[in-house]
Amino acid sequence: MAEFTVAFLPDTGSVTVAPGTPLLEAAREAGLRLQSPCGGQGRCGKCLVQVPSGVDDPTPVEMRILSPAQLGDGWRLACQTRVVGDTVVTVPESSLAIEHRIMVEGAEREVLVEPNVRKVSLRLPAPSVEDPRADLHRVMEALGEGALPPSRLEPLQDLPGILRAGGYQVTAVLAGGRLAAVEAGDTTEETYGLAVDVGTTTVVAYLCHLPTGAVIAVASDLNSQAQYGDDVISRIQAATGDPEDLRGLNRAVIAVINDLVARACHEAGVPPEAIYEIAVVGNTCMTHLLLGVPPAGLGTVPFVPSFRSAQTVRATDLGIDINPHGSVYVAPNIGSFVGADTVGVMLASELDRGDGLRIAVDIGTNGEIVVASGGELYACSTAAGPAFEGAKISCGMRASHGAIDAFCIDDDVDCHVIGEVRPRGLCGSGLVDVIAELVRVGAVAETGRMLRREEASALPEKVRERLSENEDGMEFVLARADEAYAGEPITLTARDVRETQLAKAAIYGGIELMLHQVGAEPGDVEQLLLAGAFGNYIRRESALAIGLIPSVAAERIASIGNAAGVGARLMLCSLSERRRAQEIARSTRHVELSEREGFYDRFADAMMLRPLPADR
Amino acid sequence: MAEFTVAFLPDTGSVTVAPGTPLLEAAREAGLRLQSPCGGQGRCGKCLVQVPSGVDDPTPVEMRILSPAQLGDGWRLACQTRVVGDTVVTVPESSLAIEHRIMVEGAEREVLVEPNVRKVSLRLPAPSVEDPRADLHRVMEALGEGALPPSRLEPLQDLPGILRAGGYQVTAVLAGGRLAAVEAGDTTEETYGLAVDVGTTTVVAYLCHLPTGAVIAVASDLNSQAQYGDDVISRIQAATGDPEDLRGLNRAVIAVINDLVARACHEAGVPPEAIYEIAVVGNTCMTHLLLGVPPAGLGTVPFVPSFRSAQTVRATDLGIDINPHGSVYVAPNIGSFVGADTVGVMLASELDRGDGLRIAVDIGTNGEIVVASGGELYACSTAAGPAFEGAKISCGMRASHGAIDAFCIDDDVDCHVIGEVRPRGLCGSGLVDVIAELVRVGAVAETGRMLRREEASALPEKVRERLSENEDGMEFVLARADEAYAGEPITLTARDVRETQLAKAAIYGGIELMLHQVGAEPGDVEQLLLAGAFGNYIRRESALAIGLIPSVAAERIASIGNAAGVGARLMLCSLSERRRAQEIARSTRHVELSEREGFYDRFADAMMLRPLPADR
Repeated sequence: MAEFTVAFLPDTGSVTVAPGTPLLEAAREAGLRLQSPCGGQGRCGKCLVQVPSGVDDPTPVEMRILSPAQLGDGWRLACQTRVVGDTVVTVPESSLAIEHRIMVEGAEREVLVEPNVRKVSLRLPAPSVEDPRADLHRVMEALGEGALPPSRLEPLQDLPGILRAGGYQVTAVLAGGRLAAVEAGDTTEETYGLAVDVGTTTVVAYLCHLPTGAVIAVASDLNSQAQYGDDVISRIQAATGDPEDLRGLNRAVIAVINDLVARACHEAGVPPEAIYEIAVVGNTCMTHLLLGVPPAGLGTVPFVPSFRSAQTVRATDLGIDINPHGSVYVAPNIGSFVGADTVGVMLASELDRGDGLRIAVDIGTNGEIVVASGGELYACSTAAGPAFEGAKISCGMRASHGAIDAFCIDDDVDCHVIGEVRPRGLCGSGLVDVIAELVRVGAVAETGRMLRREEASALPEKVRERLSENEDGMEFVLARADEAYAGEPITLTARDVRETQLAKAAIYGGIELMLHQVGAEPGDVEQLLLAGAFGNYIRRESALAIGLIPSVAAERIASIGNAAGVGARLMLCSLSERRRAQEIARSTRHVELSEREGFYDRFADAMMLRPLPADR
Repeated sequence: MAEFTVAFLPDTGSVTVAPGTPLLEAAREAGLRLQSPCGGQGRCGKCLVQVPSGVDDPTPVEMRILSPAQLGDGWRLACQTRVVGDTVVTVPESSLAIEHRIMVEGAEREVLVEPNVRKVSLRLPAPSVEDPRADLHRVMEALGEGALPPSRLEPLQDLPGILRAGGYQVTAVLAGGRLAAVEAGDTTEETYGLAVDVGTTTVVAYLCHLPTGAVIAVASDLNSQAQYGDDVISRIQAATGDPEDLRGLNRAVIAVINDLVARACHEAGVPPEAIYEIAVVGNTCMTHLLLGVPPAGLGTVPFVPSFRSAQTVRATDLGIDINPHGSVYVAPNIGSFVGADTVGVMLASELDRGDGLRIAVDIGTNGEIVVASGGELYACSTAAGPAFEGAKISCGMRASHGAIDAFCIDDDVDCHVIGEVRPRGLCGSGLVDVIAELVRVGAVAETGRMLRREEASALPEKVRERLSENEDGMEFVLARADEAYAGEPITLTARDVRETQLAKAAIYGGIELMLHQVGAEPGDVEQLLLAGAFGNYIRRESALAIGLIPSVAAERIASIGNAAGVGARLMLCSLSERRRAQEIARSTRHVELSEREGFYDRFADAMMLRPLPADR
């Protein structure tokens, strides 16, 4: 059978497909992800493309959704349109799916599955004149000594009907040993929980089958609180300024979690009512906003959180759409800017075990640094800022489709782009690579100064030509206008270099000061763990070269992915791990960097773009 | 100054009042209570009377509420109308207030005041760089070791704002040792609780100042669940038949409680938000309906309740309008038909103390009988039916305005009427008196047969004339048509005597069987306690004469009033009394009368209208 060529504009290459292939599928083969929230059913109208010829006639679905004028201009829905000849398809940016690269695996480790929520199947005797025990009493006695009666009204209200409808064959749902619900029949296999990592930028949810601890679906999305500000500080300000904004921030993250519940459940074919518990990690501000607690003390010196301890609340009180008898466990925080997500990282990487010197760094919008030494735990937070997440960088973007995520220089520059398409910007790992390479070839000095073209005579010609100067100062062209997706050049400016220096100095300075706190040198470090998506994709060599992390032997550096999320899963699936997390949060010393003598001196050293500490 | 005479029709006497006296006040002086839910503001239009002359002109308020035709016929609002001359006022029955005589005092006893809810005033240090403890941590540490963190979200949400607004001078509200709320400033004196006795017929609420245990207001009302049926059985049937009826029954009692909260708080000048806990007693069905729990097993053999144990639930979950952080404690039940109200009676009368033989009888819509003997507790319920509450009796009524509540026979009958007005009917204590007197003079035989006039030649003439016969059988006229309020004679029929025999036999038979259970005779009884309003107003001599209670020496019989309500107050104001109530409920043996051999034989004996047990 003949095959046809389908080319996509703006130039993202072409593919060869069989006749009758839907355009949505052809685009996917070409590495283009189009929006299709309706799942290709022709309902959402989001996969709009322009294709004048080489395709079949519009379907009734398209005739309903698109106007005659749109159809006349060749606009079609990619999910409805099938290839019948060679064709060229124009994809508007609005139809492109926003795709994120988020760590969902990571530092997994084996734990005994003993979740807080467990189900017990009970075959009870029916009441008789000889055995007229009350319904609740009958169930509690069957559960045995350790079980606690319900603390909520609803299980008691449901009990009489369920017992009788189920012929006294029922399943008791226990949460923390307390009767949380009763279900008719034997439903022990249908026990699910959700582990959620609420990041400032991204929210990730893991749907787990509690009896086995297996992850059966993962869903993630942006944290829509971003409408109130990209970083923690601006959200704290919004939440403490106007109670309506606190409510708005609370509702925003709840809406995201509800959406993730729905998506993960849909993917796994599990009803949301089968989820009885959510375990949440997040930074201290995120845990406050999730619970609707004003982060009143987080915004000003002396920076006090409203709570640190773990909280368990009813899912219905938060408006989270799981089983109405379900609850939400919010993991404990360590301090104002070292939150439950860091506790998750420490739990996942078992920093509380062993005597050796180990460091974990989680570079998100903030950079949290944890040091374990001689059985003691220390944690601090550095205001790294969002440079490594693409913000404050002129062509910065998140690690999604079209981002330059790796970079090297030979005769000319060589960019690797996520999705192998035309570049649209520069993400965090790319930023570290670009600066490391520019310093290596001498286009940027160790001080961070970008050379003018005439100073850079040692550079290869093609590289040197990429240096240019305009009224805002120097810049280096990574991709020329004709090479880039949007027709605008992608550049790294001298100001971008400064932003990166500030961010990396905050992280490096923090690590160095924490080492100082425990009286250690970088050479003493047995293990340096990089957590988070950025930590997973960063090239160690580049991070060492620009002094983002101290000079630790490369083989001692390990990426542990979204360890915070792994920690949440451990807390969901194991009560002893949950208790361990609480002990970690309780015992970790919160180090306030800005209070420490010498931090600002070290900060200045740490600005230098070279392996650190350098011989001075 | 001249005074005027105001006479009220139907004939309830006349009073002399000063000119300008409102008719509402004149009626009150004449012993007539008119409806005035608006408090005499002229808004409700419920105090309608007909008065052609001797009063001032209609006010603008009346001209708005009454039609010109009504005004033309002399209809006025008693609250708006002032006396300006001698006058005669006709009061329609619909304008009469329905007034109930409800026991609100009773078997009070001294207990140590140590309520479940207590407030602690805290003057906390403000956070500093040296003391950056989390808000919640700061409060919990000040409360000391025993205090538990909040289990609800709201206190945590409120905490940051209250701490800062109050300058760290706050009051912690502890419920069961757990932080339930935080209030700005020192509010320790403003701590209130409500004890509620939810009867099948009547609901009584006692507003208590918790730091002292003092009752500062009492409010009561009819249980508006009566719209679903007067007795427990019909409400059980409604609640288990249609979930909508269960909701309706639940909402009805909640609405009554909310109304009592508002009224008691208004009377005492206390805001409802200052109430942090409600302690509730009620029979087993009432506690189920209050919590919205289907009484599914209560309606059929083997009669199992859905729960027996005490329940503590959030006030907001029930829709009860006290402090939103407040809770509702529902006392434990003993069995299907011996509920938390009986536990309250037992607690109030300390039946759990001492070794002697003591009996408590609570005659409400059901008759609960409790026996303490040798440190053991036994309880049963008898289906006495509502005869003693006025139902099923031809001229029966509740113990309110116009009821014959005491009765004796000499040359003729002598009725005492509540409110000293023309009689409207016969209440429980009057019924017992009437039957006892009719048996004494020989108008009714011990078997319950009412004599025909020609058989009763030994009776005084005026008494004999009151015996008459119609197609329904014999009846005895207590008040002739011209003596009675409504112009209809008030009679006791032969059928009424049978109903009373059935009811009293149930109670007597129950007591006798309980005595048999513990191997005792009436002569062994150290104390026979009569609880409830009926038990308080009944004449012991009459009750003994007709064999409603066994022949115990009169000095060993005591009335303890609304002991169930006293029990609720004890549980509200003392945690050790609350624990004691739970121990009473747990340890009392529930005796199922109908299962006991000999109950029906004894029941036949017990039908006899004579002191029992008789020499046989």
